[in-house]
Amino acid sequence: MKLYDNFDSGNGYKVRLILNQLDIPYTYLEVDTLKGESRTEDYLAMNPNGRIPLLEPEPGMYLPESNAILCFLAEGTPYLPGDRWSRAQVMQWLFFEQYSHEPNIATPRFWLRHTEIDPRRQGLLEEKQALGRAALGVMEHHLKTSPYFAAGIYTIADIALYAYTHVAHQGGFDLEPYPAVRDWLDRVRDQPRHAPMATQPGPVSWRD
Amino acid sequence: MKLYDNFDSGNGYKVRLILNQLDIPYTYLEVDTLKGESRTEDYLAMNPNGRIPLLEPEPGMYLPESNAILCFLAEGTPYLPGDRWSRAQVMQWLFFEQYSHEPNIATPRFWLRHTEIDPRRQGLLEEKQALGRAALGVMEHHLKTSPYFAAGIYTIADIALYAYTHVAHQGGFDLEPYPAVRDWLDRVRDQPRHAPMATQPGPVSWRD
Repeated sequence: MKLYDNFDSGNGYKVRLILNQLDIPYTYLEVDTLKGESRTEDYLAMNPNGRIPLLEPEPGMYLPESNAILCFLAEGTPYLPGDRWSRAQVMQWLFFEQYSHEPNIATPRFWLRHTEIDPRRQGLLEEKQALGRAALGVMEHHLKTSPYFAAGIYTIADIALYAYTHVAHQGGFDLEPYPAVRDWLDRVRDQPRHAPMATQPGPVSWRD
Repeated sequence: MKLYDNFDSGNGYKVRLILNQLDIPYTYLEVDTLKGESRTEDYLAMNPNGRIPLLEPEPGMYLPESNAILCFLAEGTPYLPGDRWSRAQVMQWLFFEQYSHEPNIATPRFWLRHTEIDPRRQGLLEEKQALGRAALGVMEHHLKTSPYFAAGIYTIADIALYAYTHVAHQGGFDLEPYPAVRDWLDRVRDQPRHAPMATQPGPVSWRD
């Protein structure tokens, strides 16, 4: 199994984390997205949408979209429950993450780390941060009465939402007003075979 | 089964279409999102994220996120294949739809229909339209060699992508450069029990 990824990507980290938790060996291939390596002709032949992460579970079979990769890898494991309503809840939060959370937390993080913040971008940044705080508020509301996002157990919904929430401060977010979210971050970190986000290219390493 | 929805929403239409194709009876409840009816205290108690569509499959059980609802309803039917790789492809395109497609096609459509386009919004509109054309390009590339998005058959991935693609002109998109997409729209329209998007509140009606 091969993973095309960028070490600084939260979307990539989701996949590295589940691979580590499931103890699945893989070859990690760094793609320098800042240098355009995800938009080369060769890369677009593997993923026409030009994004990482991209999983190659068998030679020549390509699966993009971090949350689709989570579903694929977790199928048949406790990280994706089999009963219909639990699974519906997992899916609900995975789509929430990609629509309401990731664009408003990952994008401010990217802008603040890698781009110049001119007055126009400052305005857009503040709009996205307001939407990001709204997403964190929805999470806080849920976590006040549930230890995890779906079915009361740790699933890929938690992995997906952990990826950018735990680095939200890098996008200018203060988690102080979200105590239930902060407690949940600790519960995720305490999972068996949890591994921190990378500080350099390569697979994450098991820590527990 | 109850569906809280807005007749003009493509995300809502996805759910109405699968309910019609599966011949599942339901009660349709119109939510006037333009008047803030998805942000009332009562509505937020059902869906803290304040969005439609929202499915209530059993009294007091609530499922938001249009694509999660598609997965829930299609489980065990031909619209969501059971084998692992086919399912992975369905998920890939569902997440593509919510991340790369919907925000860049549905939002321009909403702005052009319901908001004033001042110079600042005009700039944002053009940026989103460029990203929307990129998403249509990814679809065109795929459909040049495949009749449908996943597993070579009509699935919920097609339903999800059809919803806003078939009204993309309302967001200022010209589909002329995408002949494979236009042919695919026809194939979707030709499916048994296909039903057009509503022109007024209520369930869609079977047509074939």
